[in-house]
Amino acid sequence: MSAVERQLDELEETITDEVPAGISISDVKYEGPELVIYTRDPKEFAADGDLVRRLASKLRKRITVRPDPDSLSGPETARERIRDIIPEAAGVTDLDFHADTGEVVIEAGKPGMVIGRHGSTLREITQEVGWTPEVVRTPPIESSTVSNVRNFLKQEREDRRDILERVGRQIHREEMADEQWVRITTLGCCREVGRAAFVLSTAETRVLIDCGDKPGAEDEVPYLQVPEALGAGAQNLDAVVLTHAHLDHSALVPLLFKYGYDGPIYCTEPTRDLMGLLTLDYLDVAAKEGRAPPYESGMVREAIKHCIDIEYGDVTDIAPDIKLTLHNAGHILGSSIAHFHVGDGLYNVAFSGDIHYTDTRLFNGAVNEFPRVETLVLESTYGGRNDYQTDQEDSERDLKRVINETYERDGTVLIPAFAVGRSQEIMLVLEEAMREGEIPSMPVHLDGMIWEATAIHTTYPEYLRDDLQDRIFHEDRNPFLADEFNHIDGGEEERQEVADGGPCIVLSTSGMVEGGPIMSWLRHLGPDPDNRMVFVGYQAQGTLGRRIQNGWDEIPMNDRGEGRGGTLTLNLDVETVDGFSGHADRQGLENFVRTMNPRPEKVLCVHGDESSTQDLSSALYHEFNMRTFAPKNLETFRFK
Amino acid sequence: MSAVERQLDELEETITDEVPAGISISDVKYEGPELVIYTRDPKEFAADGDLVRRLASKLRKRITVRPDPDSLSGPETARERIRDIIPEAAGVTDLDFHADTGEVVIEAGKPGMVIGRHGSTLREITQEVGWTPEVVRTPPIESSTVSNVRNFLKQEREDRRDILERVGRQIHREEMADEQWVRITTLGCCREVGRAAFVLSTAETRVLIDCGDKPGAEDEVPYLQVPEALGAGAQNLDAVVLTHAHLDHSALVPLLFKYGYDGPIYCTEPTRDLMGLLTLDYLDVAAKEGRAPPYESGMVREAIKHCIDIEYGDVTDIAPDIKLTLHNAGHILGSSIAHFHVGDGLYNVAFSGDIHYTDTRLFNGAVNEFPRVETLVLESTYGGRNDYQTDQEDSERDLKRVINETYERDGTVLIPAFAVGRSQEIMLVLEEAMREGEIPSMPVHLDGMIWEATAIHTTYPEYLRDDLQDRIFHEDRNPFLADEFNHIDGGEEERQEVADGGPCIVLSTSGMVEGGPIMSWLRHLGPDPDNRMVFVGYQAQGTLGRRIQNGWDEIPMNDRGEGRGGTLTLNLDVETVDGFSGHADRQGLENFVRTMNPRPEKVLCVHGDESSTQDLSSALYHEFNMRTFAPKNLETFRFK
Repeated sequence: MSAVERQLDELEETITDEVPAGISISDVKYEGPELVIYTRDPKEFAADGDLVRRLASKLRKRITVRPDPDSLSGPETARERIRDIIPEAAGVTDLDFHADTGEVVIEAGKPGMVIGRHGSTLREITQEVGWTPEVVRTPPIESSTVSNVRNFLKQEREDRRDILERVGRQIHREEMADEQWVRITTLGCCREVGRAAFVLSTAETRVLIDCGDKPGAEDEVPYLQVPEALGAGAQNLDAVVLTHAHLDHSALVPLLFKYGYDGPIYCTEPTRDLMGLLTLDYLDVAAKEGRAPPYESGMVREAIKHCIDIEYGDVTDIAPDIKLTLHNAGHILGSSIAHFHVGDGLYNVAFSGDIHYTDTRLFNGAVNEFPRVETLVLESTYGGRNDYQTDQEDSERDLKRVINETYERDGTVLIPAFAVGRSQEIMLVLEEAMREGEIPSMPVHLDGMIWEATAIHTTYPEYLRDDLQDRIFHEDRNPFLADEFNHIDGGEEERQEVADGGPCIVLSTSGMVEGGPIMSWLRHLGPDPDNRMVFVGYQAQGTLGRRIQNGWDEIPMNDRGEGRGGTLTLNLDVETVDGFSGHADRQGLENFVRTMNPRPEKVLCVHGDESSTQDLSSALYHEFNMRTFAPKNLETFRFK
Repeated sequence: MSAVERQLDELEETITDEVPAGISISDVKYEGPELVIYTRDPKEFAADGDLVRRLASKLRKRITVRPDPDSLSGPETARERIRDIIPEAAGVTDLDFHADTGEVVIEAGKPGMVIGRHGSTLREITQEVGWTPEVVRTPPIESSTVSNVRNFLKQEREDRRDILERVGRQIHREEMADEQWVRITTLGCCREVGRAAFVLSTAETRVLIDCGDKPGAEDEVPYLQVPEALGAGAQNLDAVVLTHAHLDHSALVPLLFKYGYDGPIYCTEPTRDLMGLLTLDYLDVAAKEGRAPPYESGMVREAIKHCIDIEYGDVTDIAPDIKLTLHNAGHILGSSIAHFHVGDGLYNVAFSGDIHYTDTRLFNGAVNEFPRVETLVLESTYGGRNDYQTDQEDSERDLKRVINETYERDGTVLIPAFAVGRSQEIMLVLEEAMREGEIPSMPVHLDGMIWEATAIHTTYPEYLRDDLQDRIFHEDRNPFLADEFNHIDGGEEERQEVADGGPCIVLSTSGMVEGGPIMSWLRHLGPDPDNRMVFVGYQAQGTLGRRIQNGWDEIPMNDRGEGRGGTLTLNLDVETVDGFSGHADRQGLENFVRTMNPRPEKVLCVHGDESSTQDLSSALYHEFNMRTFAPKNLETFRFK
């Protein structure tokens, strides 16, 4: 009998002792980080509203209770009873019964009404029918990504349970190492922006944090192939943690599965969906540009199948000696700061991922309170000594001015934007400005994946700023459903029409003008000096966006896909409106550290170009008297 | 055709163009770092005394010329002619003909007379008989190690040529990496003494420097098994460089071959022989103490078979992008500072190994002049702020005082000493003191491997201090042959006799009282308060030597081999006479850096306990304004 099996037997005994007489336990299993208890008396189990919480606290595990399949009423009877219990207004759109695990997945427009106060409605369901309900939100805007991911996971349910069981046994294995240490190895995004990748390693465990590409330098990938980087290869990793879905953090996560990785990816639910969307698009763009994609779309599916989604604040065992907690990072939907607690009080490290310190229209500001944290790995995109950005209020005023001016001369405003994050922020600005009459009401065309990304945002309002959540919950006040927004789904023809039509605003990907429909918009709108191009996001070195921002007005079109060659002369005005960045600026980064509780002992400044990381490192050292570093790629720091 | 073959073809063409008409080249091959030229006209080739030098400088390679076997006269004729050419006084003891390579190995008591002025005698031999002579010294004191190693290598000659050819092709392979970096990973001996091991890695190459164990903590070995440490395993290493033969640097070199390593070990010739001696003894001690040895003696033979010996100052290609030069480190016989030149002027790193900065009786002081060096990895054994040692002159006076005092009370002086290094230094002190009448002439008994190690010293006088070389060359003045020295080869019986006899001096291993005959001497001499125990070398933490030095007088004998248990009460006086260390003291380390030319930009202080490395690091930073570090094990520093 293996150590894990012995452990499970002991757990089953403890649970049997703990539950009231008359509740019988038929099995106890690990599924990923969770302990699943199967009972032949699910209704009685559910009757004691506090039982699960008591067990969880006694066993120090996350617990899920499921009915022994033998004990269940048939789905047809259950379906009717469930429909009766849930209020009409909850807007149930689907009930999906899984006889193998006794779960019923309830998709509803208003999940809160399915759950009930403190979970009372859910408990009622189990008490009545025995099945364990699981609730997901029906997207208010239809999202093919969300429905594809959900369908795929449904279809792969069995495979996924095997994976989760295997991962669960890995997590709860007995510790083998007789030494303790904590190390971080930098595999990318040091003294540069892009290709984020770090390994957190202990004598027992290796965790990869992020695995991105580098915008504008597709051949520069994280150092995964250096033999030292991942030890004897990707299969030696215990876990991958994805802070957020932007490609400079996520693009090469699927590649790991090609390299033989077969373990979990921990991230939030929206990060999982957005990663699916963005990596598939990444493959698409590579194909269009004639580059060999580093992996096939099957690997994206593998990645999604291996995702274990966790919510902000949930402390999750991911290895015998590591607990992971994700916290809101304020950067994009689902973006997280990954906090690792190593050993039994041995050490704590937080990886900021990308952060925005203050609230934006979309998100609450990044969390910087932790139970403990000795080392912080901090992004430094705007860490340079002069990287102070305009206040968003001023930026918004500026943007509205540009729009008004362009409108008056009958021109169109073209805004390159990342599909995920800045687009929705700008949409919120425009919606309010039109509603308040600060700019004329006019069409706002959304091209590329912006519409789809917006739909994903509305599927996970819990991850948005509090007041925005409220608005989305009420359909008539959902800002993303405003009449002015038009999803460009008619291709070139529709773009031509828009270009020929009256004044309007176009938001299009890619955000750094590295391919995508923005190239086509440049062709349509670029030659007319009445039009304006407005940059609202960070343009990495080496990207066409950065070049245009720097004054290039002769744009080679030949190697940018879509089969058209030649050079395009840009006559439109080019403006940059700072302050919409998803990144904290220098002030924000300093404030993040200043108000951080507790203050870390060491800070590694990463994810910024050489001078930004060095400036920030030096400033934090002088200001807070902490040990700071601006690491290079392929270095290893030992903390314990 | 592989790139290496193409390269060899081109080299053959160039050489053919370069040599005078009438000299034909039949083959060109790599053997390890050397380029071997086979000629059908070896005599004509040898006639032009400057030809090899001209070729070497043109091709920038180390060159060996060998006769095409077809062109050779038979060994019997050659033997006679060679005997005629070499002066009688050279003391030739053996001629060994290798028809496969056209080499004749000449063993002689005075190799210099075989070589002749500027190699004139060697050239004469080739001109006369065609064979390529190679000269080795007949040990003035018979050494079983030297003769075993030589016989073994003779027997494995064919296998070895295969190895060398394979290594040669590896070294001269085409560079594959399109990036450049230089990194050092610490696998041991950081903030501790013992288990020295570093990896120097570039995008192209990985070199392991040293691979030792830790005295007093046999279970603490370098971090070779951490998957990140050696990449995908020992077979991923390109080369191993061994700075010197002490076990804390060499003990686990043979283990690498068990782990699948199959490449070269670069070291000096005496380091090779001493490594053989010490690692075999290491296995022996482990067996005696009932510990499972980490490898079998066959692995020691593998290690020796893979040694490529190089001389101080010879610049040697060991990879497409790395040149190695060994320099005298002044620490023990054959000990080296390993200097690496990376890329074409990209970077230079020197690993000090263990050093002694000033001259000792045995060795010239460590070299600290290099063409270039940006980073120095510096030992810090005596790097602590109070680690100033007595001048050797004072120490010698002190030792002589102790000996005289003990002699007067009819006692015996017991000196635990490393077989290699300190023993010979003390022997020289004692020999001179008796010769000069400063201490009474009395027997000096050498137990353990001291005698054998001394024999190896006399085999390689080139590695000793200049004036000592001269004395060894003249048998009647060879200090190691003084009458007082007695090799204990009669076991317990002889030890009992010595203990029962009159006043004398006993030098015995192990140097840190961790097993070996010293344990037996403690039993014989320990109870008598008229005897004295004198520590003359560094006692690592955790060793019995350190404990006795600190005042322990109840010694548990049970787990120290030799099958006798119980506790031994020590009544003899214990003294420590500093100043004979093979290590530079704090002043010496500072002087080494101060006078180093050029001064390095960065210094990594290693091979010292936590406070020593930190003290030295901080002192060098403040004194010389260089970047200094006191790394932990398992860190990686990137320099380029």
